[in-house]
Amino acid sequence: MIPEKVMSSLAVKTNSKIVLLIMDGVGGLPLNGKTELETARKPNLDKLAQGSIGGLTDPINPGITPGSGPSHLAIFGYDPLKIDIGRGVLEAAGIGFELTGRDLAARGNFATMNDDQVISDRRAGRIPTAKNEQICAELQAKIKKIDDVEVFIRPGKEHRFVIIFRGDGLQGPLTDADPQKEGLKIKFTEAPAPESKKASDIVNKFIKEANIILKNHHPANTVLLRGIAKVPQIPSMTELFKLTPACIATYPMYKGLASLVGMKILPVGDTIASEFQTLKEQWDNYDFFYVHIKKTDSYGEDGNFENKVHIIEELDACLPQLLELKPAVIAVTSDHSTPAIMKGHSWHPNPFILHSQWERKDSLKAFTENECAHGIIGRFPACDAMQLMLANALKLNKFGA
Amino acid sequence: MIPEKVMSSLAVKTNSKIVLLIMDGVGGLPLNGKTELETARKPNLDKLAQGSIGGLTDPINPGITPGSGPSHLAIFGYDPLKIDIGRGVLEAAGIGFELTGRDLAARGNFATMNDDQVISDRRAGRIPTAKNEQICAELQAKIKKIDDVEVFIRPGKEHRFVIIFRGDGLQGPLTDADPQKEGLKIKFTEAPAPESKKASDIVNKFIKEANIILKNHHPANTVLLRGIAKVPQIPSMTELFKLTPACIATYPMYKGLASLVGMKILPVGDTIASEFQTLKEQWDNYDFFYVHIKKTDSYGEDGNFENKVHIIEELDACLPQLLELKPAVIAVTSDHSTPAIMKGHSWHPNPFILHSQWERKDSLKAFTENECAHGIIGRFPACDAMQLMLANALKLNKFGA
Repeated sequence: MIPEKVMSSLAVKTNSKIVLLIMDGVGGLPLNGKTELETARKPNLDKLAQGSIGGLTDPINPGITPGSGPSHLAIFGYDPLKIDIGRGVLEAAGIGFELTGRDLAARGNFATMNDDQVISDRRAGRIPTAKNEQICAELQAKIKKIDDVEVFIRPGKEHRFVIIFRGDGLQGPLTDADPQKEGLKIKFTEAPAPESKKASDIVNKFIKEANIILKNHHPANTVLLRGIAKVPQIPSMTELFKLTPACIATYPMYKGLASLVGMKILPVGDTIASEFQTLKEQWDNYDFFYVHIKKTDSYGEDGNFENKVHIIEELDACLPQLLELKPAVIAVTSDHSTPAIMKGHSWHPNPFILHSQWERKDSLKAFTENECAHGIIGRFPACDAMQLMLANALKLNKFGA
Repeated sequence: MIPEKVMSSLAVKTNSKIVLLIMDGVGGLPLNGKTELETARKPNLDKLAQGSIGGLTDPINPGITPGSGPSHLAIFGYDPLKIDIGRGVLEAAGIGFELTGRDLAARGNFATMNDDQVISDRRAGRIPTAKNEQICAELQAKIKKIDDVEVFIRPGKEHRFVIIFRGDGLQGPLTDADPQKEGLKIKFTEAPAPESKKASDIVNKFIKEANIILKNHHPANTVLLRGIAKVPQIPSMTELFKLTPACIATYPMYKGLASLVGMKILPVGDTIASEFQTLKEQWDNYDFFYVHIKKTDSYGEDGNFENKVHIIEELDACLPQLLELKPAVIAVTSDHSTPAIMKGHSWHPNPFILHSQWERKDSLKAFTENECAHGIIGRFPACDAMQLMLANALKLNKFGA
């Protein structure tokens, strides 16, 4: 990818529209000789592929399995190795908590310690979510502020929670307040630099207060905090690419990621059809649409090959709604692969197709991993995809004279 | 490739085993329409390729012909443009001299100078190796130490030798003590920084003493020293990749290179069969095996197309011994190409196949340059291959959340 400064000097505002359709985790591996994409009946996607150019993207680097944060940053046109999104920020995004520039966010675990403050269970026996909610409510009621810093505590699932510290002069990142292993004493966070001293003091005061409040909540009698950091300073897609971007996603995590790069989060229902309905309704208001399909990944994570195939087919049936809008550029890809047979994210590169009137003809027969592997784009870093989308929407000036 | 710090944070120790089989210089060019790999009858390699994914690697960068040092570093997962192995260190590795952290090594030439100390022949008329050995023995007998620094002199072939200075406070690299051209005066080495002053003084004292001792050894009456440097500080494969790696190679140079990255050098006979025998015997003790086949390169360098083909066939016949061990990952490639018709290393990318249960199906028919060129990995930097091997052995955690 080219440097940000060069990119922002080349990008121009135009009326042409780009749709980036992310089928989360759609890249797969064969079961009975065929991948999920090879198994699904998807005439519309295959027809689109026949008029597109194809390639395979590496979200981070060959062989590297990405989390959703870095893999989305890459496909949004950012270098995922340079932008470090703290775990706390990602979790806050995941529950839809809107972070400001004054916020320090951390991912929390309720945990169990003994009388000597030695951790015996880093997950407090995976307490039920209802219990978690109750403890979070109690902590929040008793700790609203520490010194001049506001505190927001939000429950997650089982033993997980998110905590946000909001105030002036809070610098991150801090070291984890987590011994990482059971059998070790609880740990306080440390300021790696003098300017993060205030932040570490506040966080450690919280841990001490929490330990007092939680005294009688065994097994959830202490907290571990990780990934304590501020929202990274990322130039928005408007600054970098001169886009007016919008996000159409059903899950909070992806809305959170999109908001980090300055996308407007559009209201949407729960289904793929409703996502395309939103796209149609908002068509005139934006020039870049990120449309996120979640369930390909969810079923991949569950190891449910068949349902992953069904979601691909459901998407395919809705695709004409998108095609009718005649975007200048349609890119279809996944952020990372989630092969059902691996029940998790994997390192395999993502099938990628790009449809535009300005591309050389490819010979793709279908939207599958192996067809894309032989496409004319070749194998390329996912973070370069944005450049291709912008170019094909005629949104990039010439570099040099 | 990803930064070392990220890599070492992702790598995990597991029991799965990786075999990296390097057929040195196996990539070739056609004679009578077929390359060495296309000419050889190699049913086992071809069958392995049919169950593998394929690609082409560039050891350094497209168009760049590598030496064995950088090309091996790349395939071991290191950035060959960032790690500078001095010529002296490489030559010391090549003769199996075990270097320590206190050593400064240099590659030497015996050369001819006239009474005005002007070089008339940089190779001393390519004196016979026996003569070289005799002169080295005399130099070594007369120069065992310079000040507090030990000196080790080891003959190579014809006019070449290696010299190692062992002592405290020897900093490299130094400039070459070599005018590079005939017709110029002999040159002393210089210290590019104050902390290498001691080293340059010692090296120059050696040159002066050698000139006195060699006075009557015309044409070998002086020495030229190049690539004067210490062993580079390379993180070991254990630090970087959490591997317990072993080297199975018959030639000292490759054992030396492997030891630079922390591999255990295993005892082995002279033949390919004996290399695979060692592999079998040591199977339980390591999780990464680098197996090096030398003679494909040697015959390439000799321009002996036919014998290069025979070595490929000999390797193929032994391959079942490797396959029986059922490694989680087998990668077969060359470090660089050595087309017999070019009689030397070349810039052509290397055929690469990777066999693992976790890869997408490819459509390779055989292990050849052109089949690999159409493989689904595509063309990629050799230094990324290690990430693919580790990923396929399930030895890498997810990057980011």
